[in-house]
Amino acid sequence: MIERVWVYDRIPQQDLQKRIEGMQRLMAKNHIDLGIIFQNVDRFYFTGSMQKGVLIIPVDREPLFFVEKSIERAKAETPLDIIPIKNDKEIKKILDSNRLLGGKAGLELDVLPVSTFERLKKVIGFGDYADVSASIKELRAVKSPFEIEQLKKSGRMLSHVFAKAKDVVREGATELEIDATLVAEGRKLGHQGYLRMRGINQEMITLTVQCGFTGAVTPCADVPIGGAGLTPAIPQGSSLKKVERGIPVTIDYGGGYNGYVTDETRVFVAGELNEIFRKPYEAAREIMEEIQAYAKEGVDCVDIFARAYRIAEKAHLQDHFMGYGEGQVSFIGHGLGLEINELPVITARHGRVLKEGMVFAFEPKFVLPPHGAIGVELDFIVRKHGLERVTGDPVDIVYV
Amino acid sequence: MIERVWVYDRIPQQDLQKRIEGMQRLMAKNHIDLGIIFQNVDRFYFTGSMQKGVLIIPVDREPLFFVEKSIERAKAETPLDIIPIKNDKEIKKILDSNRLLGGKAGLELDVLPVSTFERLKKVIGFGDYADVSASIKELRAVKSPFEIEQLKKSGRMLSHVFAKAKDVVREGATELEIDATLVAEGRKLGHQGYLRMRGINQEMITLTVQCGFTGAVTPCADVPIGGAGLTPAIPQGSSLKKVERGIPVTIDYGGGYNGYVTDETRVFVAGELNEIFRKPYEAAREIMEEIQAYAKEGVDCVDIFARAYRIAEKAHLQDHFMGYGEGQVSFIGHGLGLEINELPVITARHGRVLKEGMVFAFEPKFVLPPHGAIGVELDFIVRKHGLERVTGDPVDIVYV
Repeated sequence: MIERVWVYDRIPQQDLQKRIEGMQRLMAKNHIDLGIIFQNVDRFYFTGSMQKGVLIIPVDREPLFFVEKSIERAKAETPLDIIPIKNDKEIKKILDSNRLLGGKAGLELDVLPVSTFERLKKVIGFGDYADVSASIKELRAVKSPFEIEQLKKSGRMLSHVFAKAKDVVREGATELEIDATLVAEGRKLGHQGYLRMRGINQEMITLTVQCGFTGAVTPCADVPIGGAGLTPAIPQGSSLKKVERGIPVTIDYGGGYNGYVTDETRVFVAGELNEIFRKPYEAAREIMEEIQAYAKEGVDCVDIFARAYRIAEKAHLQDHFMGYGEGQVSFIGHGLGLEINELPVITARHGRVLKEGMVFAFEPKFVLPPHGAIGVELDFIVRKHGLERVTGDPVDIVYV
Repeated sequence: MIERVWVYDRIPQQDLQKRIEGMQRLMAKNHIDLGIIFQNVDRFYFTGSMQKGVLIIPVDREPLFFVEKSIERAKAETPLDIIPIKNDKEIKKILDSNRLLGGKAGLELDVLPVSTFERLKKVIGFGDYADVSASIKELRAVKSPFEIEQLKKSGRMLSHVFAKAKDVVREGATELEIDATLVAEGRKLGHQGYLRMRGINQEMITLTVQCGFTGAVTPCADVPIGGAGLTPAIPQGSSLKKVERGIPVTIDYGGGYNGYVTDETRVFVAGELNEIFRKPYEAAREIMEEIQAYAKEGVDCVDIFARAYRIAEKAHLQDHFMGYGEGQVSFIGHGLGLEINELPVITARHGRVLKEGMVFAFEPKFVLPPHGAIGVELDFIVRKHGLERVTGDPVDIVYV
């Protein structure tokens, strides 16, 4: 019955099997005997269900999916066998009777709070342990055809919302009004409701609108344009700032379909673009064209960043590239999937070779305090011979 | 300049001072020498700023607020002195030169990931440590007059959105359509954009609409009514289910003003209420009247729960009270503040005496699978001689 009120596609069983086998291979390589998967997104990745519980992946045996609740929903969601439990204290005995204890445990130490870790140590009863989050991220970086299909459906929300934006952005409208209207547009189309970002203190907003100085406020988050927000208590996002003639309105929106997030930015201008922003905009577009001509499987992310930086330098805009002053961030692109901060990260430092099936957002942006910010962001799928756009939409400035 | 595009009130400096002194008293009691505050909400609570950094509270000296970025914003947001740093590696030297190292450190072990903890241990250089999250929760449980004012302003968003709901709920509308429209209404009024819930795997939605079986689906979260959501990847919230005549539509909405969250539920019905839901609705209302006649400073939460349960039992509805079967939850109320799961928690087990200034949501609800769910939720401020409503709105069923 529940499936009739959902907007979703079911994960193919063979995808889940491949993911678990992939994890087991990485565990074997790192001498981990028992993967303990607790975080909701990772658990969903391996099982297709986010119901409350713990997934145990032995390195050489079938996984054990312990579910507290809802057992009924978990059964409907995952093709894996589930082990219903009333309480996590039951886990140890079951693992012990399956002779699964004694080896080295692998946990998601990048997200697992210390007290949760201590509890798991007690109720599961492992001794030696290591961090498996890098392996999970590695595995999740390359998307299956099913996942790419989900990302494309997520991308359709971007197309829909950016198309609507040209009716909503107008001189005198506040960032907040534009934000509220567009988020509702996406949600009515079936947007999942929120986006996920991995890690403590990482908070996501679905959409943010900036026009003028709010685009040049230094974000506390690791993003080039974060916005002023409405209060120091939510230090990012749209504000009461009004759209002014000639000043670019950047709209950064994340689609969300069946768990998969996309993330693009477009520019809207009421009237003619103020000359201050012309050169930065052209540089951003040139960087965007360069990556599309150059990047493909086998290319190193460090080279992509270097090429982008050279274009910014050539335009004498390196001080404004990806933020200004204390706000300058070190990346120009980030992986997309179930979370918005997946691999690859495209920076000057982290060497990583693109592989077919990776999906990332690429966002050349320039910040010019106190005037504002400008830039574009597109999502790409890495293919053997080039990049494929997640959406096929035009990315020119929309004049309203 | 930034303050002109905000919807907010500035935290009085004496509030911050009282919070820090309160923390120092609890630290002294628990033999903690150095409080290390890393989580964004806790950091905001003590400083008024959520900019990236670490707050160090020595037990008997002024706090040291290390800020990475934005230094400019932190300066505008907090009346505390700030210590600008480029990197958290600078912290140790500064603490050492202030002779602040060597004692027992207190950290938020309920939220701090293991790898973040290990990093802090290295860059701050503490040895012995303990969990201070219980102290922080204790402190945050009692609200100052300023905080209560913020909660009341947050409550105004509830009044606005529930008033609009009667124009939006109609037979044949999907839960999702109602959701999208109402969230936009609240946002345009200045809703901060999202709500916060403390802990790993705790995800919040701003609003959820349930009509019929979706209200009776067992949630994986610790809530009586969670909804079907749109996909197993977001296992809560509104779905494509349509409003039917006679079946109650429950709308659970959280206001968000200047960081402070409120959380109420109302019932809307197209046509006449189906008889199945009549008795549960009356029991929920009776429980709500009982608590308002009885609760005040000094009352134990266990007694409140017991009285509510007795009313459910008298109506022979105890099996449907606060969920059904595996979905039955153990609480009927939860504290409100900067997070939605603050103290007090009103359960059958956790004895806790109400204190003036505590603020909590109280939500008697009944779940009747497969038909649906019904119940109300109101927010109260604890006073010496009774409870004060956060909003003063009527809570009768709205017939549309």
